[in-house]
Amino acid sequence: MALSRTFRVLSLPVLAFGLQVAHAAELPVRPSASEVIKTSKPSDWRPTDPANTLYLDLPTGRVVIELAPDFAPQNIANIKTLVKEHYFDGLSINRSQENYVAQWGDPNGETDKPKSLGTAKAKVTGEFTVPMSNDKHFVQQKDADGYAPQIGHSNGFPVGRDPQARTTWLTHCYSAVGVARGNETDSGSGVELYAVTGHAPRQLDRNITVVGRVLSGMPLLTTLPRGSETLGFYGANEARMPIVSVRLEADVPEAERSHYEVMRSEAPIYQQVLEAQRNRGGPWSKFAANYLELCNAMLPVRERGKL
Amino acid sequence: MALSRTFRVLSLPVLAFGLQVAHAAELPVRPSASEVIKTSKPSDWRPTDPANTLYLDLPTGRVVIELAPDFAPQNIANIKTLVKEHYFDGLSINRSQENYVAQWGDPNGETDKPKSLGTAKAKVTGEFTVPMSNDKHFVQQKDADGYAPQIGHSNGFPVGRDPQARTTWLTHCYSAVGVARGNETDSGSGVELYAVTGHAPRQLDRNITVVGRVLSGMPLLTTLPRGSETLGFYGANEARMPIVSVRLEADVPEAERSHYEVMRSEAPIYQQVLEAQRNRGGPWSKFAANYLELCNAMLPVRERGKL
Repeated sequence: MALSRTFRVLSLPVLAFGLQVAHAAELPVRPSASEVIKTSKPSDWRPTDPANTLYLDLPTGRVVIELAPDFAPQNIANIKTLVKEHYFDGLSINRSQENYVAQWGDPNGETDKPKSLGTAKAKVTGEFTVPMSNDKHFVQQKDADGYAPQIGHSNGFPVGRDPQARTTWLTHCYSAVGVARGNETDSGSGVELYAVTGHAPRQLDRNITVVGRVLSGMPLLTTLPRGSETLGFYGANEARMPIVSVRLEADVPEAERSHYEVMRSEAPIYQQVLEAQRNRGGPWSKFAANYLELCNAMLPVRERGKL
Repeated sequence: MALSRTFRVLSLPVLAFGLQVAHAAELPVRPSASEVIKTSKPSDWRPTDPANTLYLDLPTGRVVIELAPDFAPQNIANIKTLVKEHYFDGLSINRSQENYVAQWGDPNGETDKPKSLGTAKAKVTGEFTVPMSNDKHFVQQKDADGYAPQIGHSNGFPVGRDPQARTTWLTHCYSAVGVARGNETDSGSGVELYAVTGHAPRQLDRNITVVGRVLSGMPLLTTLPRGSETLGFYGANEARMPIVSVRLEADVPEAERSHYEVMRSEAPIYQQVLEAQRNRGGPWSKFAANYLELCNAMLPVRERGKL
């Protein structure tokens, strides 16, 4: 995931005529986020945990999902049961709503012939927030946030916190994975999961259980055709992307595994990465925001050991 | 654009067994944004202006772009010259970067054989901010914002304002359309335009000229395959989506026109739409955010006269 966000220089004709105007740089030249990342040490990264990594394999490729069991232990336990019993294999992606979510599960889940849940539970208590003691390696982000009294990163996940209520929760940034539910708080079970594909719908925070986020493969979800029915569900005659399988990385033979590592958000270098995004330097940037919205603070992810 | 954002009810088996548990509603039932919109009067909407609406016609369909000349008069004048002289016809979309932008223009723009700009300028002064007196019908949004001292809507566009500097600017919310540039502030001219396809990159605000936003057709841009090169540019051997034509609506025969109208952001009902999103009611919502981030406050757009 490239963090460099400058726009391509379009001024070749100017260069060709030797007329490039030397504007006084308004901002000091500072290292970009990608330049900061290049200075990282191997110890600044942690490998993903095979016991908490899901592979959503589609005919078009693999979506890798990192689970955060500290934030949703019961829902994740149920999802692992579903996965272990091959519940998702052969099901499909049933919803793609522009600037919102892609959602997968049983296309017949709401008919009178739903797929058997096996030994998994049909209803799991919503884990919309958990005790603040659950979040590991929490590092506060200093920027103010409209949706949470406090924000930061916990083991790499963007989280909100309410220090008064002593609660913490995973936020709905782009790539967050959550548990669809009906009106009742315990009506979700993990049989339908969604990933955020657009601008962060943070109003969902504390309203629904978030279980993790997509580490790799987001374009496989974001480029799906949008469903024509309400909320982006596909109609009966629309082609749905089939799910080849959903597996826990720990159950996948080594030769078939993906190998990702995530920057440790508790490592000092991560604060430098955030600062490089909070106050971008010249020569492209002319105005430094001195602010970094939580969902613009993306955590660096890479294939293991690759720069 | 559906504003309703509830998740599909998954509790059919529960209903079938008549076991639906009556949880005490934690939030009062309030009208949703889409319910508020249904109460609008015809006078709450304004038709788009043919002199400031662009059609980006692709083989897959039409992208409708509303220009905001109050915010970028010089850049928009140059774009209109390019459009009038058919500059974009036959060019292509050259960049699709995940969770960021799609960008179009001349694929040979940086070679020694760029397409002629005709009578259009190759360099236009960057209009990153304009005097506050430029923004028409400004209505302040009360929510705090990290990227701007003041936010609101001006004639339907989400804007930032600095009352001390007395400047205003269009913000980089999802669907914003801007003028790509190199390092020099005047190195953009409108020959390469981009649309924001992901989470709002608000750090670009006040750094680049925004000229408008996509009113219709965003999925045609967001579902494009991502480019494999740096920043999502397509490689030489990757298929690019060709541009059939870019035309000003005023130059298009009536029979070929699209007919959109936009809710007037200065109409009192728009504040109700925002409030419905700021504090969602039950029964689905369990926690009301009491906050609405600027880029989550989408302006209602519809085909003229259709509910």
